[in-house]
Amino acid sequence: MHRNPTILPNFPDAFKQIMELSEIREKNIPGWTRRAFTPAYNQGRQLVKQWMENAGLEVKQDPAANLLGFLPGKDITLPPLLLGSHTDTVLQGGRFDGVLGVVGGIQVAKALHSLSPLRGLIVVDFTAEEPTEFGISTIGSRAMAGTLPVDALERRDSNGRTLAEAIDSAGGDSILVAKAAWKPASIFGGLELHIEQGPVLESNGKDLGVVKGIVGIRRIKFIAHGRADHAGTTPMAYRKDALTAMAELVLVLETLCKRMAITIDPEPLVGTVGKLTVYPNAANVIPERVEAFAEIRSLQVDTLDALTQSIRQQAEQIGERRGVPLSMEVLSTSPPIATDPGLQRVLKEVAAVLTPRWMELSSGAGHDMNQISSLAPVGMLFVPCKGGRSHTPEEWCEPEAVNKGVQALFLAARQICLEESI
Amino acid sequence: MHRNPTILPNFPDAFKQIMELSEIREKNIPGWTRRAFTPAYNQGRQLVKQWMENAGLEVKQDPAANLLGFLPGKDITLPPLLLGSHTDTVLQGGRFDGVLGVVGGIQVAKALHSLSPLRGLIVVDFTAEEPTEFGISTIGSRAMAGTLPVDALERRDSNGRTLAEAIDSAGGDSILVAKAAWKPASIFGGLELHIEQGPVLESNGKDLGVVKGIVGIRRIKFIAHGRADHAGTTPMAYRKDALTAMAELVLVLETLCKRMAITIDPEPLVGTVGKLTVYPNAANVIPERVEAFAEIRSLQVDTLDALTQSIRQQAEQIGERRGVPLSMEVLSTSPPIATDPGLQRVLKEVAAVLTPRWMELSSGAGHDMNQISSLAPVGMLFVPCKGGRSHTPEEWCEPEAVNKGVQALFLAARQICLEESI
Repeated sequence: MHRNPTILPNFPDAFKQIMELSEIREKNIPGWTRRAFTPAYNQGRQLVKQWMENAGLEVKQDPAANLLGFLPGKDITLPPLLLGSHTDTVLQGGRFDGVLGVVGGIQVAKALHSLSPLRGLIVVDFTAEEPTEFGISTIGSRAMAGTLPVDALERRDSNGRTLAEAIDSAGGDSILVAKAAWKPASIFGGLELHIEQGPVLESNGKDLGVVKGIVGIRRIKFIAHGRADHAGTTPMAYRKDALTAMAELVLVLETLCKRMAITIDPEPLVGTVGKLTVYPNAANVIPERVEAFAEIRSLQVDTLDALTQSIRQQAEQIGERRGVPLSMEVLSTSPPIATDPGLQRVLKEVAAVLTPRWMELSSGAGHDMNQISSLAPVGMLFVPCKGGRSHTPEEWCEPEAVNKGVQALFLAARQICLEESI
Repeated sequence: MHRNPTILPNFPDAFKQIMELSEIREKNIPGWTRRAFTPAYNQGRQLVKQWMENAGLEVKQDPAANLLGFLPGKDITLPPLLLGSHTDTVLQGGRFDGVLGVVGGIQVAKALHSLSPLRGLIVVDFTAEEPTEFGISTIGSRAMAGTLPVDALERRDSNGRTLAEAIDSAGGDSILVAKAAWKPASIFGGLELHIEQGPVLESNGKDLGVVKGIVGIRRIKFIAHGRADHAGTTPMAYRKDALTAMAELVLVLETLCKRMAITIDPEPLVGTVGKLTVYPNAANVIPERVEAFAEIRSLQVDTLDALTQSIRQQAEQIGERRGVPLSMEVLSTSPPIATDPGLQRVLKEVAAVLTPRWMELSSGAGHDMNQISSLAPVGMLFVPCKGGRSHTPEEWCEPEAVNKGVQALFLAARQICLEESI
C-alpha cells in the first residue's frame, strides 16, 4: 500500500451501522441482546443483507444460513479473500462483539468495489457464533469449514426445537447443510476484525493489535467428595468439608496460572473457576459435595499439558491430606489456533502505516476464524474496547477505534486483492 | 438413688416407640420426614398423645399446640419437673432427633407413676423445634418461655399459610398463644434427653454425656464484590475474581477455628461456611459476586467476639490486597446457654451409677432447652449416635444406648421428684 499512500478513506458509516443494528434486539431483555435464531436476529440480518447489497455485493444464504456477500474479482481463477464475523450476541451482551467484523467487511467491500480488484472478496455474517442452547458455538463457520458434528442438527433447545429447525427458520436449508462446506483451496484466506474483549491493548495504550494466535482451551470439572455433618456438633478435627477442600484447589489453580503466566511471559496463560456449586448448600450443614468447572487457556499445548498435570497432582494431594477426594475430569480440549505468518505480516505492515501504537497479542477468546483455520489461512485484527469489557451491555468501542480498525482491514484487503501475491 | 439400688427398670418400649413413630412420615419424601404442621406431624402426635394417656398422664394441648402430659405430685405446692423434646423432623431427617426425649419422658413418667412422686412431672412434646419456613425454630418452647417474637404469627410459609394458621391446624389456638407462656417459678427445671448429633461420645467410647452448656451461634454473611470479565481475554494480573477472594476467606475461617479450637481446648469452637453462591456462575466468566453464609459456635461469648473480630480483619486485608472488597454482616447472634450446676450434678451422679463410660461435653446444636432456660434451670443428657450422623436418614442409635439414656433420665427424675431437695 506504500504505492497508494493518498488513498486512505475514512469509514464513518461503520460506527453508524453498528449503532443502527444494535437497535434491533430482543426488547424484553436488558442489554443489547440479539441471540441467534430469534426473530430479532433474523430481522437484523435483513438489514445486514441490505447493507451488503448497497455495497454492490451479490448476496446469498448458504444451507447453514450463513449470509454471504460476493464481490467478484477480475481474475476468477484466484480464490477469494474472506472477511467475516457474526451478528448474534450473548444474552445481555454488547453492540460491537462480532458486528464490527461484519460491518467492517461490508465497508471494505464497498471501498474495494470501485477499485475493481483482481481477487474476489466474500463478506460473511456467520450464523450463530456465540454459545447456543444446542451446546455448540460457531455453527455457521463450522458448517463452512465442514466441521459441524454430525449429530448437531438433531439437538434441541429448551423449547424443543432442533438445530435443523432453527437453521431453517434463519433462512438456511438444513437438509443440505453439508453442502455449506467449502473446499480447502477455494478460499485464499480469512480475516476477522474484532474488538479485543480484554484489557491488553487499552492498558498498553495501543490502537491496533495483530493476533499471533488464538488460545487453546481445556475445560475441567472438579468434584470434592466430603461428608454432610452437622455444622454445630462436628468438631473441626472430625470434618470432611468439601468446600474448604475445593477452596484450596481454587487458590492452587490461581497460583499456578499466575506463576506460569510470569515464567512463560509474554505468552498468555489464564485459568478460571467460573462455576461452583455447593451441596446441600445450607448454612448449618458442612458441605458434602462441591462441583466446580474450570478452564485454562494458552497458545501452547505444552503449557496446557503441564498445567493440567500440576493441577491433577495438587488435587490428589489436597484430597489425600483432607480425606476429601477431589476428582478431576477434562471435559473438552480445543487446540490453539495459529494465525498465518503471511497474513500476520500484511496486518503488521498495515498497522504500522496507520499508527505507531500497535502490538502483537494473542486472542484469549475463540472466534469464527478458529473454524475457518481448518479451511484456509486466517488472520485477526483487534481494536481496543473500553476497560476491556465485553459480553456486557457496557461493551464500548470509540468511533475512532472502529474507523482505525476498518482502515486497517481495508489496507490489508486492498493489498491482498489488488496484487497477485503478498 | 443409692437408697434404691435394686429399682433400675429397663425401658425396651422406648426404642420400639421410636421405631413405631418413625413409620408415620411424609411418604412421598425420602428419609424419615415428619415436618412440623404437616398431616404426618399431627398424626404422629395423636400416637404420642395416646402413649401419654397410657402412661397415666393427663394430656392437654396449650395454645401454641405444645402437647403436655401431666403427672401430678403428692405435694401440689412443689413446681413440677419438665421432661421434653420434640417430634418434628427436618426434611429427609432421622428417627431419633427429638423423638428420643419425648418417648424417654413418657417412659420415665410411666415408671414414676407407680412411685407416687412428691413432685409432679410434665412431659412435653414441644411444637416445631426444627427450622421452619416461618424463619423461626423452637416455636413451642419459645411460646412456653414467652419468647416468641410478636410478629412471628403473621409470617407466611411458601404456601401462603401464616404461622397462626399452622399452629391452629396443629391443635393450638393462636389467638391465645401468649397464654402458653409459663411463669418463671412455675417449673422446677427442665431436662432433655437427646442424641448427641456429633461424634464426640462415640469416638471417646462413651455411653452417656452430661451437657455443660449449649453453644452460642453467630451467623455471618459475606459478599465478595469482584468484576465479571471474560475468562479467556483477561490476563491474571487484571482480574478482580470474587471466587478466589472468597476461597481465601473460607480457608482463613477454617484455619482460625482450628487454631483457636486447639488453644482454648477443651471448649468447643467450630466455624463453617455451609452456603456459597457464585454469580453469574458461568464457566467462562470471572465470578463477579460471591455470597457466603458462615456460622461460628462456642460456649464462650469472648471467643465468638475474638473470632468475629479476627475474621473481619482478615476479610478487610484480603479485600484490599485483591481489590475485591469483602463485606461482612453479622446476621444473628444467639448467646451460649449455661446448663444448671445443680441439674448437672444430678445428671453426673446418675450417669456414674449407670456406667463408667460417661463424660461432660457441650452441645453444638440448639435445643428446646435453649428457650426453657429463660424460664427455669435446664439440664441435658446425650447418648451417642452412630458415626455422629444426624439430620440424615442414616441417623442411628442402638437400642442399648436408647435404654441407657432413658434409665439415666429416670434416675434423675426419680431423685428430683421423690425427694424435696437435691
